[in-house]
Amino acid sequence: MAGIKTLDDLFLHTLKDIYYAERQILKALPKMAKAAQNEALRDSFMLHREQTQQQIERLQQVFESLGKRVQGVTCEAINGLIEECEELLDEAKEPGPVRDAGLIASGQAIEHYEMARYGTLVAWAKITGQQQVVTLLEETLAEEKQTDALLSKMANEKTNRDALRTAA
Amino acid sequence: MAGIKTLDDLFLHTLKDIYYAERQILKALPKMAKAAQNEALRDSFMLHREQTQQQIERLQQVFESLGKRVQGVTCEAINGLIEECEELLDEAKEPGPVRDAGLIASGQAIEHYEMARYGTLVAWAKITGQQQVVTLLEETLAEEKQTDALLSKMANEKTNRDALRTAA
Repeated sequence: MAGIKTLDDLFLHTLKDIYYAERQILKALPKMAKAAQNEALRDSFMLHREQTQQQIERLQQVFESLGKRVQGVTCEAINGLIEECEELLDEAKEPGPVRDAGLIASGQAIEHYEMARYGTLVAWAKITGQQQVVTLLEETLAEEKQTDALLSKMANEKTNRDALRTAA
Repeated sequence: MAGIKTLDDLFLHTLKDIYYAERQILKALPKMAKAAQNEALRDSFMLHREQTQQQIERLQQVFESLGKRVQGVTCEAINGLIEECEELLDEAKEPGPVRDAGLIASGQAIEHYEMARYGTLVAWAKITGQQQVVTLLEETLAEEKQTDALLSKMANEKTNRDALRTAA
């Protein structure tokens, strides 16, 4: 990295960060789906995996639209978030609603990271007047918010209640 | 950690995670304030430091209300988020609006992590019927959302425009 001096540099750096993050999430989601006991939760992780694939393609379009090489930079935040999810699976070994509740929480922490990053990127793309980039990033941002809302709904309508009934 | 078997175990584990996170954030905020050039941004980081101190005290009250020892567990997510902020400061060396825009983005990523964690903890405290705990955690959740909104406002009303005018 040659150093961040302008808003364009900052945008590109953050774009590389979320590109790396999305690729890590793509690898993490099948593991999260496999660990989930509830079928609807498993399906929602796999559906979000398909969305993540499309989100990666949108990011590639953003790089192209800026005339930049598609490239990631290590994102310690997503590495930490995924590591935390793996630790949870290690500590909540038993498949079932408690583990599912933890998986939902991990999924929502990941979604929130993405919401923060895409929200920032949209604001920067707007101010630099790059309408095509804004449209691509806003599409993904809306999907991340929907996924977060869906996970909340699943937790509130079923998983948390089932987890509460789980005895030690 | 003896293993997570029940929703109470999961709640306590997540409580320890956010307790560790808040203490790391308490240490990070003065560095972020020092790195910020814009005075209003510097002030907002220092104000949020005071809020973070209160949020830590609220978490201590939650531990007490559950009859548990106040204790943190390493939270790799916040470590990653803070590391990412430090890397940004390393790469955007020049004090000014571009660095400030990056600091705001880092601050919002941290707020989003907290929003996810407190949102989850509130949902779990509600279902277990712990009203005092719900009240304490909801107070903090509202502050995190306010801080995130304030950072967005600062970025949109001033910092991003100033950053756009910064030449290489």
